Amino acid sequence: MSDSPRKVAYLGPSGSFSEAALRASTLYLAGGSEPVPAKSVLHALDAVRNGEVSAALVPIENSVEGSVSVTLDELASGKRLVITHEVVLPVEFSLLARPGTKLSEIQTISTHPHAQAQVRNWLSTHLPDADVIPAMSTSAAAAALVGENPPFDAAIGQALNAEIYGLEILADHIGDSSDAHTRFVIVELPGNLPAPTGADKTTLSVFQRSNHPGGLLEILTEFAVRGINLTRLESRPTKKSLGDYYFSLDFEGHVNDLRVEEALMGLHRVCLDIRFLGSYARHDGRSPVLRDGVTDSDFETAQSWLGNLKNQR
Amino acid sequence: MSDSPRKVAYLGPSGSFSEAALRASTLYLAGGSEPVPAKSVLHALDAVRNGEVSAALVPIENSVEGSVSVTLDELASGKRLVITHEVVLPVEFSLLARPGTKLSEIQTISTHPHAQAQVRNWLSTHLPDADVIPAMSTSAAAAALVGENPPFDAAIGQALNAEIYGLEILADHIGDSSDAHTRFVIVELPGNLPAPTGADKTTLSVFQRSNHPGGLLEILTEFAVRGINLTRLESRPTKKSLGDYYFSLDFEGHVNDLRVEEALMGLHRVCLDIRFLGSYARHDGRSPVLRDGVTDSDFETAQSWLGNLKNQR
Amino acid sequence: MSDSPRKVAYLGPSGSFSEAALRASTLYLAGGSEPVPAKSVLHALDAVRNGEVSAALVPIENSVEGSVSVTLDELASGKRLVITHEVVLPVEFSLLARPGTKLSEIQTISTHPHAQAQVRNWLSTHLPDADVIPAMSTSAAAAALVGENPPFDAAIGQALNAEIYGLEILADHIGDSSDAHTRFVIVELPGNLPAPTGADKTTLSVFQRSNHPGGLLEILTEFAVRGINLTRLESRPTKKSLGDYYFSLDFEGHVNDLRVEEALMGLHRVCLDIRFLGSYARHDGRSPVLRDGVTDSDFETAQSWLGNLKNQR
Amino acid sequence: MSDSPRKVAYLGPSGSFSEAALRASTLYLAGGSEPVPAKSVLHALDAVRNGEVSAALVPIENSVEGSVSVTLDELASGKRLVITHEVVLPVEFSLLARPGTKLSEIQTISTHPHAQAQVRNWLSTHLPDADVIPAMSTSAAAAALVGENPPFDAAIGQALNAEIYGLEILADHIGDSSDAHTRFVIVELPGNLPAPTGADKTTLSVFQRSNHPGGLLEILTEFAVRGINLTRLESRPTKKSLGDYYFSLDFEGHVNDLRVEEALMGLHRVCLDIRFLGSYARHDGRSPVLRDGVTDSDFETAQSWLGNLKNQR
Repeated sequence: MSDSPRKVAYLGPSGSFSEAALRASTLYLAGGSEPVPAKSVLHALDAVRNGEVSAALVPIENSVEGSVSVTLDELASGKRLVITHEVVLPVEFSLLARPGTKLSEIQTISTHPHAQAQVRNWLSTHLPDADVIPAMSTSAAAAALVGENPPFDAAIGQALNAEIYGLEILADHIGDSSDAHTRFVIVELPGNLPAPTGADKTTLSVFQRSNHPGGLLEILTEFAVRGINLTRLESRPTKKSLGDYYFSLDFEGHVNDLRVEEALMGLHRVCLDIRFLGSYARHDGRSPVLRDGVTDSDFETAQSWLGNLKNQR
Repeated sequence: MSDSPRKVAYLGPSGSFSEAALRASTLYLAGGSEPVPAKSVLHALDAVRNGEVSAALVPIENSVEGSVSVTLDELASGKRLVITHEVVLPVEFSLLARPGTKLSEIQTISTHPHAQAQVRNWLSTHLPDADVIPAMSTSAAAAALVGENPPFDAAIGQALNAEIYGLEILADHIGDSSDAHTRFVIVELPGNLPAPTGADKTTLSVFQRSNHPGGLLEILTEFAVRGINLTRLESRPTKKSLGDYYFSLDFEGHVNDLRVEEALMGLHRVCLDIRFLGSYARHDGRSPVLRDGVTDSDFETAQSWLGNLKNQR
Repeated sequence: MSDSPRKVAYLGPSGSFSEAALRASTLYLAGGSEPVPAKSVLHALDAVRNGEVSAALVPIENSVEGSVSVTLDELASGKRLVITHEVVLPVEFSLLARPGTKLSEIQTISTHPHAQAQVRNWLSTHLPDADVIPAMSTSAAAAALVGENPPFDAAIGQALNAEIYGLEILADHIGDSSDAHTRFVIVELPGNLPAPTGADKTTLSVFQRSNHPGGLLEILTEFAVRGINLTRLESRPTKKSLGDYYFSLDFEGHVNDLRVEEALMGLHRVCLDIRFLGSYARHDGRSPVLRDGVTDSDFETAQSWLGNLKNQR
Repeated sequence: MSDSPRKVAYLGPSGSFSEAALRASTLYLAGGSEPVPAKSVLHALDAVRNGEVSAALVPIENSVEGSVSVTLDELASGKRLVITHEVVLPVEFSLLARPGTKLSEIQTISTHPHAQAQVRNWLSTHLPDADVIPAMSTSAAAAALVGENPPFDAAIGQALNAEIYGLEILADHIGDSSDAHTRFVIVELPGNLPAPTGADKTTLSVFQRSNHPGGLLEILTEFAVRGINLTRLESRPTKKSLGDYYFSLDFEGHVNDLRVEEALMGLHRVCLDIRFLGSYARHDGRSPVLRDGVTDSDFETAQSWLGNLKNQR
């Protein structure tokens, strides 16, 4: 890494929600970062793996649509990366069209499938007969309206894109949920472990030794017995056969917390493989509520009690 | 329902994997069904809800890409439907283009994002620079190549579509996993509960009373204590706030099995809501391996033991 | 059973703690009972089994000495009996001797081993060199002081026995714990199940299918999953081989409570054998604090929800 | 401790089962020990605590009668001692009387209550009307027959005592269980931790933070999650109030095994207090069958995996 600005890839094109998230991140606000659009999640991650950029921001989860499968799966395989920051943004959708278009004229609309999922109710009420054409991103859909002979009549995306591409906002705040949020993560090469803040999360991919009944119960027990609260759990196909899964999960705590250390070692013993995907500050700064007996101080007291026992002569 | 053929909706257009799955289903093979394409999963399901068709076939899970979120979420909300059959098909992908196109000329490709995910490696090896444009379905992508001025150079889909649309197969068997399968379900209105076969599955959506730590452990314990094996578990956002989930799950057994009855009632007591989405024969006819104490006969013996105890005078 | 007074055996001799407990019981206070001393727990229980008496009161647990093994083991084997009442009495001990005896002269003392355990501290302070000779009961020890040539110098027992046998109280309130209590049970033949009061306990002997690791965890889980709180748990040898145990336990609730019914049937399925030893009102009238989802009304709601599901057509 | 023989106390008097156990122990067989009878378990233990003897052998458990409460409770309180050896002996009982006594003449018998429990069936068949008088020990009962005017007609104890006291064996092998065994332990001051043998046991007293529902489940889970098998579990009254217990337990493994270390620290964190009562070789040399993931080597691998993760830069 040089003195020149650190390049940070994001899921482009320019004007995407990911760019907005990157510009809102503490990494960017600290200065010295140069945002670089990538054309897919995989391109963004591989740019970090190859050393072309020093970090990448990609979406990982949406409060309406759920996990971003491609992000989970690409982080679970290939050269290991670690999450160093998370960013959460509210998402607001607008219907965008070329100036002069009337709502009643719209027959085809393009947007990203995740955005489509978030405006389902609005569409079925206001444009029940419109066909929806998937786009690579909401900004790509907006951009496509600019050229001659646009392939559809309108796009669903951020209001910001109206400004960028000279479009008109036909309807604003059309998301079904007024409280929709998207969560993004910034990933870097391992070796960049943020210091604990007391309000951290850790992300793992967990592969079971065999897909046995009770396997998930066993994994959850390793966390429960050390008082660790999971905040996300996804089963994802291993791509080997139907019904064969790995688990992608987030939990409260930092790998430097003693309860987390012990739980990780416990998982390592009962699982086929664990991929550690980073410990990082929670976007909301909320500290975990810990039950009795699982603070670092409790672990240290237990350790010295045991040491005394064994050294008695 | 009349004597005329029972209409069965499927995720269209004609020539889709869903149509192939429907034609392979025991429902169709039994005769008297008329396949009807629907333009989205939601359209297919709503056609059952409205009584326009008597059943609908939609994809629910893929061994590479994971669950079909829209199917899970649409079954978890709206008027309740129940799964009555499952169908599993191997999926094979081909690169389709207008006759005369050369591989080296291809710059843009269209396909459904799930299909794209399944040919990721092939694409990065053979067409690393091609842009991929999402389509509503693999057959829609193929169909779009037919008209004048097609919006892209090639499509990824089933070999069958080459025949239907007069396209050429430029590359065959391009899926990354030679063992990819898609699982489809046929849904009907409640009241159509298939009889137990001894090799059944049951599907539920489970909403927790509150998103408390250990909530999932509690749910899994209700199954474990009655010796019931889960075959699929997904956390899905409730769309209320980031980090608030419901669970979509499948397990071995039929609602008429006594261990399943007791587990369902147990879940009903500890959860906010349970949506029963049907009991149906497994596609592979594999009977569960039950541990001691959880067969119907074990439940009946325990019941009569208890009855005797209480009636002693 | 006739109109003449119901005979109730108790662990004698006359003047024993058991007699005091019987006279304090609701059974006795309701009238119509004739107390009959028995010379051992086994004699008392067998008198019920043989029909010589209609009930028997025996001690089952002491807050200092723990369970009365002989009572647990005799209830766990032989012809089945059921507990219909429990009685709890505070226990106070005195040092009794023939009139004129001085504390300093006492070299041998007799008492029941349970009583000895409860005055251990007092003895080691005040009579550290005295030998203690076990007696069948505290009243037997007191009685033995009466005859000529008594085999020891003093007895430890109830103050009441000083009066009965013409002895002197050399020291009063000599129990180590000021809060010692003994719990007694009244047993009858099966067929006498008291009605639920809302503040009940149930007693079982539980025999594991095999003495496998995790067997007890399995048993406890059957209770935990139905929100049932155990109030006593003892492992007792099965007398087959060292390290082979059965469990004697009490829990909150009545066999007519739906959560208890389900737990009992669950235990019956996972265990080799369950001996039901009765449901009866708690001596302290304290109702259980039930978590959400385990009241009778919760069970009934779940049952009717399931019934509706299955009957839908 | 000097060069002179190490004194080892045992539960006397001379000729007791405890003496036989001591003489069969590896400690005694190694030479240099001088057996010293103690008149009670407490006297034996206190002699170690005071430094009068260097070790003490006391009975802890019997396959028929269960735990020896006084041993458990005295080890759980007072100055801490640790178990360094266990010894298991088969127990055989005989009916002993003064020469010339006929079985039909016997009206009163004396023995220790534990022995009485083990010959219950034989007595009810052959001497149903005899009164049984408790003795401090089986050898004390035999000894009492020697003097003039013996206080009872016969004693139940070891055949060995017939020889010692010049008595006649009226009936041999009168134990109800042909496979009865007693387990004894040798205790010493802390600081004498035997080296691991690969076939070890560890003994603890565990005091719960509060007597809450699910407390025992929590304790058992700390063992289960590290694959540790319990071989004995007793609830014992804390002597504070009825229904308030501590747990006395044995499990497979040595405090130097990494899984045991972690479990002990886990218990220390969730419990009010843990008293470590020693790790020692099993009498039967049987090694534990360990599940995957809990050997020392598994713990070490997990530890170095975690170390690598955290040190990556």
